[in-house]
Amino acid sequence: MMRNYSVRTDLALEEKERFESDDVEVQGVVLEENYDEERELRLTRVEITTENGAKAMGKPVGTYLTLETPNLAVPDEDLHMEIAEELSKYIRELVDKNISGEKKKESEDLSVLVVGLGNRDVTPDALGPYVADHLSVTRHIVKEYGKYAMGMEHACMISAVVPGVMGQTGMESAEIVRGIVQETHPDLVIAVDALAARNSRRLNRTVQIADTGIHPGSGVGNHRSGMNEESIGVPVIGIGVPTVVDAATIVNDTMENFIRALESSESLKGVGEVLKSYNPGEKYAFVRELIAPHLNGMFMTPKDVDEMIHQISHTISEAINMLFMEQA
Amino acid sequence: MMRNYSVRTDLALEEKERFESDDVEVQGVVLEENYDEERELRLTRVEITTENGAKAMGKPVGTYLTLETPNLAVPDEDLHMEIAEELSKYIRELVDKNISGEKKKESEDLSVLVVGLGNRDVTPDALGPYVADHLSVTRHIVKEYGKYAMGMEHACMISAVVPGVMGQTGMESAEIVRGIVQETHPDLVIAVDALAARNSRRLNRTVQIADTGIHPGSGVGNHRSGMNEESIGVPVIGIGVPTVVDAATIVNDTMENFIRALESSESLKGVGEVLKSYNPGEKYAFVRELIAPHLNGMFMTPKDVDEMIHQISHTISEAINMLFMEQA
Amino acid sequence: MMRNYSVRTDLALEEKERFESDDVEVQGVVLEENYDEERELRLTRVEITTENGAKAMGKPVGTYLTLETPNLAVPDEDLHMEIAEELSKYIRELVDKNISGEKKKESEDLSVLVVGLGNRDVTPDALGPYVADHLSVTRHIVKEYGKYAMGMEHACMISAVVPGVMGQTGMESAEIVRGIVQETHPDLVIAVDALAARNSRRLNRTVQIADTGIHPGSGVGNHRSGMNEESIGVPVIGIGVPTVVDAATIVNDTMENFIRALESSESLKGVGEVLKSYNPGEKYAFVRELIAPHLNGMFMTPKDVDEMIHQISHTISEAINMLFMEQA
Amino acid sequence: MMRNYSVRTDLALEEKERFESDDVEVQGVVLEENYDEERELRLTRVEITTENGAKAMGKPVGTYLTLETPNLAVPDEDLHMEIAEELSKYIRELVDKNISGEKKKESEDLSVLVVGLGNRDVTPDALGPYVADHLSVTRHIVKEYGKYAMGMEHACMISAVVPGVMGQTGMESAEIVRGIVQETHPDLVIAVDALAARNSRRLNRTVQIADTGIHPGSGVGNHRSGMNEESIGVPVIGIGVPTVVDAATIVNDTMENFIRALESSESLKGVGEVLKSYNPGEKYAFVRELIAPHLNGMFMTPKDVDEMIHQISHTISEAINMLFMEQA
Repeated sequence: MMRNYSVRTDLALEEKERFESDDVEVQGVVLEENYDEERELRLTRVEITTENGAKAMGKPVGTYLTLETPNLAVPDEDLHMEIAEELSKYIRELVDKNISGEKKKESEDLSVLVVGLGNRDVTPDALGPYVADHLSVTRHIVKEYGKYAMGMEHACMISAVVPGVMGQTGMESAEIVRGIVQETHPDLVIAVDALAARNSRRLNRTVQIADTGIHPGSGVGNHRSGMNEESIGVPVIGIGVPTVVDAATIVNDTMENFIRALESSESLKGVGEVLKSYNPGEKYAFVRELIAPHLNGMFMTPKDVDEMIHQISHTISEAINMLFMEQA
Repeated sequence: MMRNYSVRTDLALEEKERFESDDVEVQGVVLEENYDEERELRLTRVEITTENGAKAMGKPVGTYLTLETPNLAVPDEDLHMEIAEELSKYIRELVDKNISGEKKKESEDLSVLVVGLGNRDVTPDALGPYVADHLSVTRHIVKEYGKYAMGMEHACMISAVVPGVMGQTGMESAEIVRGIVQETHPDLVIAVDALAARNSRRLNRTVQIADTGIHPGSGVGNHRSGMNEESIGVPVIGIGVPTVVDAATIVNDTMENFIRALESSESLKGVGEVLKSYNPGEKYAFVRELIAPHLNGMFMTPKDVDEMIHQISHTISEAINMLFMEQA
Repeated sequence: MMRNYSVRTDLALEEKERFESDDVEVQGVVLEENYDEERELRLTRVEITTENGAKAMGKPVGTYLTLETPNLAVPDEDLHMEIAEELSKYIRELVDKNISGEKKKESEDLSVLVVGLGNRDVTPDALGPYVADHLSVTRHIVKEYGKYAMGMEHACMISAVVPGVMGQTGMESAEIVRGIVQETHPDLVIAVDALAARNSRRLNRTVQIADTGIHPGSGVGNHRSGMNEESIGVPVIGIGVPTVVDAATIVNDTMENFIRALESSESLKGVGEVLKSYNPGEKYAFVRELIAPHLNGMFMTPKDVDEMIHQISHTISEAINMLFMEQA
Repeated sequence: MMRNYSVRTDLALEEKERFESDDVEVQGVVLEENYDEERELRLTRVEITTENGAKAMGKPVGTYLTLETPNLAVPDEDLHMEIAEELSKYIRELVDKNISGEKKKESEDLSVLVVGLGNRDVTPDALGPYVADHLSVTRHIVKEYGKYAMGMEHACMISAVVPGVMGQTGMESAEIVRGIVQETHPDLVIAVDALAARNSRRLNRTVQIADTGIHPGSGVGNHRSGMNEESIGVPVIGIGVPTVVDAATIVNDTMENFIRALESSESLKGVGEVLKSYNPGEKYAFVRELIAPHLNGMFMTPKDVDEMIHQISHTISEAINMLFMEQA
């Protein structure tokens, strides 16, 4: 039942919530939450440990760290440096987990390719390209002068690319990145992308970091093929920020409220009952039918999306810059 | 009843449809439709002739010309030149109607300020700025060398400005434009803006040209104060293209389908009846309640909005360029 | 003699140097220099006090503060905050000097319009527009909610506009700004523009702040009409950064070296003597003749101009933001 | 002698002129010129046929077609379509020459990767990226639906990429392109780049098409490694437009005039003689010395470079689109 529909979300955290609403215990999925009340930072850790868990969640086995904070949207330089430090801690955790033992020894000299996925010309999809814009790339300098030129004992070689979207390039982002990886041999890829959330309250206040890369159908741009160690050849850390919600989801939210409203109405109680008996999957499928087909391929986004994207992209670049400078 | 809710649309055409769905005859509103089947061009002319008509329509007295064609979204240079020619005919009609007799005599030497409203940084709101970018401005040349320098017997003085949005400037677009008009004395303002449609099928295939200017709450950017002859000091022709639909509207569309679905369901027939008895206003108000408040201030737009905006802005600039070159 | 040629520079500081090379004492021009060795900050203060001084300098009577530091081009957040603080001190000095007594009383509640001059589409000319982009505008908020909404006892009303260049708008920037000033009544205008320097060593490491506004022929875009209290109606503080050098200037630099080279050459000593006898004006005029006319209207700029412009525009916005936040 | 200095130009045509000024016959270099007076189109064909010719020219063996026309800079849609048609003829010639026999058979179904070299953020270097922006890519469509979906019997697979510059990516453009070529297997690469000209009169009115790809030191961005069949693995057609002239070149032009001026001056005749005896190489080396070192890494470009770049990039995209549509 679960498998033959999907609530459109790229957040493991939201997949998990779906089950809670069904009071279902999911085998092979561990959820752990920490809330730092004072700093208003909520970290949710979803570990998918078994293939069954993966199947139920519709997401691959791996670790999904989600940081939620209203401050991501607050224009305050200090708050953003604080958040960047948090993020770089989590990215570091997944980098260390995914770099093989012998690499780890020299992990102060990692070579990392940062990929800014998405479409620079569609505001809510421009997060990845903007992160790449703000990054301090070092690979060419280290290669030409050696790390000592940079007055460092260790230096990571950071490179960055904005592959563009298929409508602009005629190629899958994954093809482009795979080619560049085979040519420049980074130890690791960090792919940054705008995501679609299930719950519009999460837009522009949530960052998900996962060691499973980027999956098909993720993000605004709907990549047809995913990016992970299997397809790219090196471990892929995916960093995503939900910037849009899709039409069907919004409508679905309303239906839930609608049905609740019906239940409390005398004359309409009947419907409430019947509809209530539907499970979320059935309701969602039902809604999908009701939405005119031309609604598919439309997304919803806040009016101030431009400021959000600019701010958040700075914070994420900062986190990545910190991470690999610390190492030096 | 009508006054205490509003279906969010900037298209007079759609306001009119609302009433038809109620089988209401509207005093002081004349609707006329022409469809050129071969070229797939539909022109709808809405004339609001009385204050009552204006009240019922929630739009000022004036002429609203709406051109609809799927070709607006087709990447074909020839089709776009054809559409540009149509558009320039309609703009010309409203220009002539609004230039006072004695001006008309010399109307080959009109001075026109084109205003590109909206936010360059939010894709679906960038239509106005892009139109301004592609315009051939001539005012400075005519002023410096005279029209003969341009090898013309007559020459319009075209100027253009992109005022930006309040979040960037701290000023109302109307304040900026009023100031520039008082300083540079154009005979006419043409204001181009992205609009919000009621029906998502109309996105990126519809152009509305009105001699009532731009009203508050129009467009993606939600201007607080309107732009018309009264506020700006010279006649204002508004050119708008719907590029977004707002959240509540989408949900509302679905509800209508939902209710229809209920009617046809045995078990739920009852509800269908009851809900059917609600008028669109009531239904819409009902939906508004159901939508979480954070949905307000969100809009829905297609994923290929960037290509649409680029194409359509070229076509509209072309129409304006033609208009005032013809005159020469 | 001096009047019939002009070495193309927008920096008062460089005009002054010209005379030194001639060992001429200039009446009505006071020059004062401070060098903070440790922080590598050089402040040069040029006061033009009389009409004779103005005539000799080819610049209006007023105060010209020039900050020079190599750090302006160094990508270091802390250095830039330090420079921003310096700059805001100097801007503040000129603001206070130019706000009339009774205004000064309430000077915590100043209303300021920041004008980002230049062309967003030509990298070295984009400084002004970028500064406007990064500014925190407050006028609309203060006007709607009052300063208390901002949790402040005093609040300046900051507004910003990017008028565009004549080729895009068909209007003089000065016309646009004058209109907006008459409509929105700021107490003061701060106009930011990219300048042309005489000495390429000064590019991207120099900021000039003057209470004489912007003069014709300044900047990359070559405004035809200036912006000052007389033309705009309120005091105009000009903030400029040299980002280009013009062709003739570069060639001129070389000629000077060439002539020096000739002097030291036995066979060519003669020429050296003769040329040496020319004064800079004559040499410059001579060079102008030698340069093919199509060189006029060309400018020279460094290859990394994009990073420079982005960095420096951030620093200047920061300085302006600080200035009017302090006041609160 | 020739080898120990280089006049900075990317145009084979200009290298050739250098020798003419010396009245030297160059072995292994064939020059042929056609001028279409009525259409003001000049085509210069430089064939470098031997290694000696290559050495003397400082350019690899191959065919260099240069189209010069003032109309490239004239904003006239019809003129640009005419130029685009000319260009597509020349590109076609070099494509056919470089596709191996068995490929030629199926040459209606070529797979081509267009590379937009340069830096989107530096106006005169943005030509390549803009050409890529305006291209109709088809590879993804042909791959998914087959050419019949496009209602064609034959269909080329066009893909496009904007690799960015080393300062942004930390990688050589050549590394990125090589990787993508190995992954997506195009038959051919077309690389578009902004060039540096020797003669400022050629800026923005010249297009060079060469089957030798892109060489190190070409363009504004100064790529360190070239792009040709050897380094990329498939034939590389280079399309270049000179958009900048470097500082030393401008100065050099002036010196030439200066020396001519000296000859005609009685008192200075001596110098004229002596300098005249220098050959261009010596003069250039002399000038290089005279220019302050900080001038290196600066370029000169016209003030209206933004309009030029936009116009010319459209024309070149059009030429490429035509080329591969014709084939269908």
